[in-house]
Amino acid sequence: MIRIAIIGLGLIGTSLGISLRSADSKKDPMGNIEVIGFDRSTDHAKEARVRLAIDKIAANLAEALKGTHLIVLAVPARTIPSVMQEIAPLLEPGAVVTDVTSTKTDVMQWAAQYLPNNTFIGGHPMAGREQSGPKAAAHDLFKDAIYCLCMSANTPPEAVALCEAVVERIGAKSYFIDPVEHDAYVAGISHLPFVMASSIVNATTGASSWREMAALAATGYRDTTRLASGDVTMHCDISLTNAAAITRWIDASIDQLQHLKTALAAGDEAAVTDFFARAQNARNEWLKQKPGMRPGEAEYEDLGVGMVEKPSFFGRRPGKR
Amino acid sequence: MIRIAIIGLGLIGTSLGISLRSADSKKDPMGNIEVIGFDRSTDHAKEARVRLAIDKIAANLAEALKGTHLIVLAVPARTIPSVMQEIAPLLEPGAVVTDVTSTKTDVMQWAAQYLPNNTFIGGHPMAGREQSGPKAAAHDLFKDAIYCLCMSANTPPEAVALCEAVVERIGAKSYFIDPVEHDAYVAGISHLPFVMASSIVNATTGASSWREMAALAATGYRDTTRLASGDVTMHCDISLTNAAAITRWIDASIDQLQHLKTALAAGDEAAVTDFFARAQNARNEWLKQKPGMRPGEAEYEDLGVGMVEKPSFFGRRPGKR
Repeated sequence: MIRIAIIGLGLIGTSLGISLRSADSKKDPMGNIEVIGFDRSTDHAKEARVRLAIDKIAANLAEALKGTHLIVLAVPARTIPSVMQEIAPLLEPGAVVTDVTSTKTDVMQWAAQYLPNNTFIGGHPMAGREQSGPKAAAHDLFKDAIYCLCMSANTPPEAVALCEAVVERIGAKSYFIDPVEHDAYVAGISHLPFVMASSIVNATTGASSWREMAALAATGYRDTTRLASGDVTMHCDISLTNAAAITRWIDASIDQLQHLKTALAAGDEAAVTDFFARAQNARNEWLKQKPGMRPGEAEYEDLGVGMVEKPSFFGRRPGKR
Repeated sequence: MIRIAIIGLGLIGTSLGISLRSADSKKDPMGNIEVIGFDRSTDHAKEARVRLAIDKIAANLAEALKGTHLIVLAVPARTIPSVMQEIAPLLEPGAVVTDVTSTKTDVMQWAAQYLPNNTFIGGHPMAGREQSGPKAAAHDLFKDAIYCLCMSANTPPEAVALCEAVVERIGAKSYFIDPVEHDAYVAGISHLPFVMASSIVNATTGASSWREMAALAATGYRDTTRLASGDVTMHCDISLTNAAAITRWIDASIDQLQHLKTALAAGDEAAVTDFFARAQNARNEWLKQKPGMRPGEAEYEDLGVGMVEKPSFFGRRPGKR
């Protein structure tokens, strides 16, 4: 039986527990599992237990790690270093550690520093909600989601296999990616959106006319700013750990806004039309992609199932297995 | 029987027709109505008829306006001047003209220029979808939506009453507003969001790494950029007719982005936290407001129904009735 510890029982940690435990152990290759949970907040731990995300609550990290094969760090990004230092002496031989945070470069460096003799595989499920905490957890949060995995050239194959099995069990799809590339990409498609959403809210709600404006704001405003309601600590942690990449995307967006301003000032209808037409076309092309398809996977599927053998993995895996 | 002509059978025109015709004529104060539709596109007109948005299709503007009490211009903003010039000689005495476009200052000026005295009331239902065309029309698009109305000091009371009755019949809520204020407000809560959404899409999809990024983009990206899929002509028309107000909100948003960039460059955790905390608080406060409440209306409702008499109108109405 595989024993998994989830450290941190917020939205992601609790959803992960629910997904792992609600999978059919008879059909899943992992078979029977035991999920033990730990959170510094007793309320979070109790809520996770009530929601059946965990088999039991650990009183402390030592209890959580005793006899545990896989440790999932589901804590805010900037608390990862201190948690790694705390767990390092408690890890069983051969135990694998992973995380679920949105940035990977810093996390991989921290792991090399604080868990030098242990196996760390960086993880990032491309799924979330603007609500946070265990109450917002959902059993299908990871369904068909791409789950990024970052490893090094000498990561043991059995550790990779364990993480892949977890990803499969929760209905997500493993995608191997270099941590620097990961951070640059998610800065654009995941971090820039919450930065822009928060900027819209701060710009509009800070205006003296906001009270009158507020009544007129409807579904367009609601959806475009949805991410601004996300967890403040998470947004702050992500922004500070991925500042350079996010700043590049902010600059690219400001360039777009300046370009539109220039076109509006000139009354340049062709340029204004081009601005909105490019965005409409590009977004609609993106929407046509099948959800949860890793780069290269859609092309494989288009060839027809059974016509060619599906690759054993997607993305870039350093070293050999 | 009131005869209403809808000129332009896209998303809004068709939804308006469906809402008007599906209301219970026995219960609605307007009683029986006849809706006649006109669109330069025969396909649009036929689709609107198939969807029961109109009683019949007019072959031309003259036929649409003959014996008609209310003409709704549901055409793109920048085609309004030419349509006004075409319909001016065809209007029956006492006929009222209104529109549904997102900007009101230009439209009110065009009406003053091209239409006979006092027959025009500007309208703007605060509702929409990113899809366009009659196929995207919905019977409940205007349910509980605030419907802005702009009039001049000499607008006849019976013309105002007719527009108010239409708004009530489709389940929306009349809100009287000055056209310049209207344009400044909607530039922030309605136009800025589609500008920002399009900027995100152009910045990200224009990157050389977009192919890899695209696969990782998930619900956050989808929702934040939803408005970028909106109608290009509408976005272009709105931007050009409301350029000054939109530019002010773009500048305010760039200020927010620059502020965050500075905080990130300095590693200023307090400033970064404050940025996201302000946005989260402000958006959550906004979400707490009851939907479709006009400024002042929620306070009235909080006093308890029946305790005080509900005002006969909300917003600012110039002149007297």
